[in-house]
Amino acid sequence: MYSSFKRLLIGRPLKTHELGEQKLTKLKALAILSSDALSSVAYGTEQILIVLATISTLAFWYTIPIAIGVLFLLAALTLSYRQIIFSYPQGGGAYIVSKENLGINPGLIAGGSLLVDYILTVAVSISAGTDAITSAFPILHEHNVFIAVMLVIFITILNLRGLTESAAVLAYPIYLFVFALVMLIFVGMFKIATGQVSPQLHTSIGTPVAGISLFLLLRAFSSGCSALTGVEAISNAVPNFKAPAAKNAAATLALMGFILAVLFSGITFLTYWFGIAPKGNETVISQIAAQTFGRNFLYFFVQGTTALILVLAANTGFSAFPMLAYSLSRDKYMPRMFSIRGDRLGYSNGIIFLSIASILLIIAFKGKTEHLIPLYAVGVFIPFTLSQTGMSMKWLREKPKGWIGKLAINLIGALISFLVLAILFVTKFHQVWFVIIFLPIVVYTFYQIKKHYSAVGEQLRLSKHIEEEIKGNIFIVPVAGITTVVDRSINYAKSLSDQVIAVYVAFDKEDEKKMELQWAELNNGVRLVTLYSSYRSILHPLCKFLETIQAKATEKHYMVTVLVPQFIPKKRWHTILHNQSALLIRARLLWQKDIVVSTLPYKFKK
Amino acid sequence: MYSSFKRLLIGRPLKTHELGEQKLTKLKALAILSSDALSSVAYGTEQILIVLATISTLAFWYTIPIAIGVLFLLAALTLSYRQIIFSYPQGGGAYIVSKENLGINPGLIAGGSLLVDYILTVAVSISAGTDAITSAFPILHEHNVFIAVMLVIFITILNLRGLTESAAVLAYPIYLFVFALVMLIFVGMFKIATGQVSPQLHTSIGTPVAGISLFLLLRAFSSGCSALTGVEAISNAVPNFKAPAAKNAAATLALMGFILAVLFSGITFLTYWFGIAPKGNETVISQIAAQTFGRNFLYFFVQGTTALILVLAANTGFSAFPMLAYSLSRDKYMPRMFSIRGDRLGYSNGIIFLSIASILLIIAFKGKTEHLIPLYAVGVFIPFTLSQTGMSMKWLREKPKGWIGKLAINLIGALISFLVLAILFVTKFHQVWFVIIFLPIVVYTFYQIKKHYSAVGEQLRLSKHIEEEIKGNIFIVPVAGITTVVDRSINYAKSLSDQVIAVYVAFDKEDEKKMELQWAELNNGVRLVTLYSSYRSILHPLCKFLETIQAKATEKHYMVTVLVPQFIPKKRWHTILHNQSALLIRARLLWQKDIVVSTLPYKFKK
Repeated sequence: MYSSFKRLLIGRPLKTHELGEQKLTKLKALAILSSDALSSVAYGTEQILIVLATISTLAFWYTIPIAIGVLFLLAALTLSYRQIIFSYPQGGGAYIVSKENLGINPGLIAGGSLLVDYILTVAVSISAGTDAITSAFPILHEHNVFIAVMLVIFITILNLRGLTESAAVLAYPIYLFVFALVMLIFVGMFKIATGQVSPQLHTSIGTPVAGISLFLLLRAFSSGCSALTGVEAISNAVPNFKAPAAKNAAATLALMGFILAVLFSGITFLTYWFGIAPKGNETVISQIAAQTFGRNFLYFFVQGTTALILVLAANTGFSAFPMLAYSLSRDKYMPRMFSIRGDRLGYSNGIIFLSIASILLIIAFKGKTEHLIPLYAVGVFIPFTLSQTGMSMKWLREKPKGWIGKLAINLIGALISFLVLAILFVTKFHQVWFVIIFLPIVVYTFYQIKKHYSAVGEQLRLSKHIEEEIKGNIFIVPVAGITTVVDRSINYAKSLSDQVIAVYVAFDKEDEKKMELQWAELNNGVRLVTLYSSYRSILHPLCKFLETIQAKATEKHYMVTVLVPQFIPKKRWHTILHNQSALLIRARLLWQKDIVVSTLPYKFKK
Repeated sequence: MYSSFKRLLIGRPLKTHELGEQKLTKLKALAILSSDALSSVAYGTEQILIVLATISTLAFWYTIPIAIGVLFLLAALTLSYRQIIFSYPQGGGAYIVSKENLGINPGLIAGGSLLVDYILTVAVSISAGTDAITSAFPILHEHNVFIAVMLVIFITILNLRGLTESAAVLAYPIYLFVFALVMLIFVGMFKIATGQVSPQLHTSIGTPVAGISLFLLLRAFSSGCSALTGVEAISNAVPNFKAPAAKNAAATLALMGFILAVLFSGITFLTYWFGIAPKGNETVISQIAAQTFGRNFLYFFVQGTTALILVLAANTGFSAFPMLAYSLSRDKYMPRMFSIRGDRLGYSNGIIFLSIASILLIIAFKGKTEHLIPLYAVGVFIPFTLSQTGMSMKWLREKPKGWIGKLAINLIGALISFLVLAILFVTKFHQVWFVIIFLPIVVYTFYQIKKHYSAVGEQLRLSKHIEEEIKGNIFIVPVAGITTVVDRSINYAKSLSDQVIAVYVAFDKEDEKKMELQWAELNNGVRLVTLYSSYRSILHPLCKFLETIQAKATEKHYMVTVLVPQFIPKKRWHTILHNQSALLIRARLLWQKDIVVSTLPYKFKK
């Protein structure tokens, strides 16, 4: 039943050699991996305006130079990640780049902060998308958390089905969103060019503004940089591309950078020209669309696709997290289970882990994850800075042809990223201090896991020293009465060894005597040892008895095996009708006594 | 760690022969078993007034004849249960009496409805007590559910510590409560006798009231009968008394009946004489206390002990539920675990089950369990009616000396109980219909459990037919690579049988070849079978392979044993770093394939 339900949800299992067919073309990859980056144009410009509005509407013209700064950083990041893709076609992004060029600690910091970041991406973007949906249908507003959780589950299932299938589902909304915004920008520009928009709506560039400061402009810039989150996703996922993987990935990145630049500069320009101010209850995109189209079908088309893309931005996390977890797991910094492909060839454990973690975040914050956004920006700019510093080191060390140009690109990217990071820490410390505590804990955990795996590997390595020969076996059979189960257990034990001891734990003296008499009658050639328990515990006297046996056995190079019968009822719920002593005995002996435990199933026929 | 924490909470384990010391004296028994019954005087009179108030305050004089009716029923119940105690000193109350005299179905109905009732007792009385506490400290009001749950846990721990210790803790509040109410009644009477209370406050008995009806009076009477819940508790717990148990229990019951009668009639008389009307925000007891003492220390003493006793009423459930569950479990209508004494000689499983069930009820109803009260009353009067009908049948059948008097007592009790039950069903059907659905489900479950145990008993009975001889053993060792663990497993398997097969599941052809070569190098005389899995599942190909082996083995009367190594890491959390394939394989083979699974622990040294 469980397995047919699973098949219905995620589809039939795929064979390993079908992996190639699951790989992505450029257009599908763009759909899957760019939703996070592209969706940020829905709020990037607004973030800048909100900071500037604290001074005066006169300051709004600064959006233009700030946007140029953001575009510049975008260009630097795109070029930089293009270089990463070609240098590291096996994927892994910031983690691999930092690890190989700066050392293991920067690598783990980059990896750890990206892992946490992808969880935040999912929680934040799903919550934002849910808000957009329930703003349109206020009746749903009280079910926000439930809807958000359902959306996470939906995207989880899509991803468990595999890359190509989720690409097929996700491609439409993303291309529709790009189409809607391009149309919006085009119509807006046309209206401006044909003089249908009053040029009085905006202050001209260069207007002096009282009270403006460098600090404020930097803060506005760092807020605008939130439009750049998600740019790194493609570099993490290079191995998911169809061959030639690196070339296709680089082309996809370039295309994404170009679309992002067009949309961001178009939206920012229209915002400036229309003189739009941020409002509490209406987004900047909504205001532009209303002014350009009026509130007709086209307006709702823009609004609908924007809401959809915010939800789908979560998908970038679902593509990148499992790949990064795989890289860390392969290096033994994360549990091995993250490196196993599931039925549909995705790294299911990573997908499921991400899904559960983000659902817990959504529930914990009751769907109000907005104040996680600065944390999320810090989580992105730490790996940005580290990976570009790493690339700079690489060029300095390797000095390939044209290295000065390459170095310049990465160095500028690294400097700007670091600047953004510093501004975030200075201006929003009360919202981001958590990183300083949390990141070291994550890195420490990575090290503990690595340490354990190294220790295990060492112990498992087969040395030439051969195990001591086992000279014989003693079987201990705990019995609870004289039944067919006991008969069967003794029979089995006798077939394996001639040293079988039955053990009975009695709670009173009378009981003890009765059992001894009945056993003598049985006359099966097996010795019965009765133990008396005044505390009504079976485990305690049994363990003490086994300790003595074990000590004697070790002397003679004998192995001790405890044979425990386990009832297998016809109906699963019947299990609660039987004392689960077998399970308790087994757990105790295995974990504390280092004794082999053999379980003999006894299937009830009715 | 767990065990020392447990010891701190519930005390050191007791030996079985210490049971005698845990038995109850009359005074301690009264403290433990009467809290439910005595606490009901805190609301019994009020319940009658609430019904009468729907007509007019003129009708309040009817409380006097109605209270006389309730006292009459109390006398009948007390005498009846006294007869039950002597006839059934082994305890079990309504369940045993109904089963032996009316047949198994009435017995199970009585038992089932009492079990459910004790859960309701705990949930309702703890919620009521919590309300009383948080009314005094409004700041705590929003933490109602949390406080109620903590109180249940506190009473659970008391009961897990054992009867005598909880009696020691509970005796003070109960005797203080009785003392407070006796004092209240005494001072009130004194004031009336000395003419300090105006005789104008109440209408005289016999005043005609417009609109009064028999239906309404019966309803008021049935509401007043809620003061009688808990009377049966002593008869269930006779075996917990010090010898002579029956005599001591009967004396305790008589004492409780007497105290209950005094308190109930005193409170009712003062209520009538002071002309007190029920108020939404102040209890009747509070009004009487305020009029008698004024709002001074004595008033708060009465209020405080009343709140406390409401919480402690839950304890009656904790004493009676485990005993009843034990009786049902001994007759195999409930899981065996309810008949096992815990470390402190109480039936711990019953106590824990009751605790969890009532906590779930409190959480589900968010601490507002008032509308469960009618359900709870029905749950009490079903066993009252059945047990007294049963006793009547007994006298009719056995006709001992003086049987006519005894029959009269039980018959009257049965008739009044049935009347109350009928009134409850007629007047509050919308609140009690649930019983009609739920009770048959409970009884059906009892039968299913009994059926399972009977079937098991039959299958386990040792017949003369001796199991077929086992002619040999085949050991299957799944291996994941060439490690010390494999070396050890093969070594162990070889010491038990000369037919050992190692099985390796390969995910690709290359891997398969590599393993085969490495195995050949090992040269340990054991054959390696490699299985190829294109779906990356270990379990599936392994099970298919075992099926073939099993078929061949059965033909030759061989047993098949699968040897699974289990990693035992140093630190418990390291477990998540290893794939739990061993557990999965074990569960699948035991439950579905009927194959012996032997687990070889491999302890990591670091």
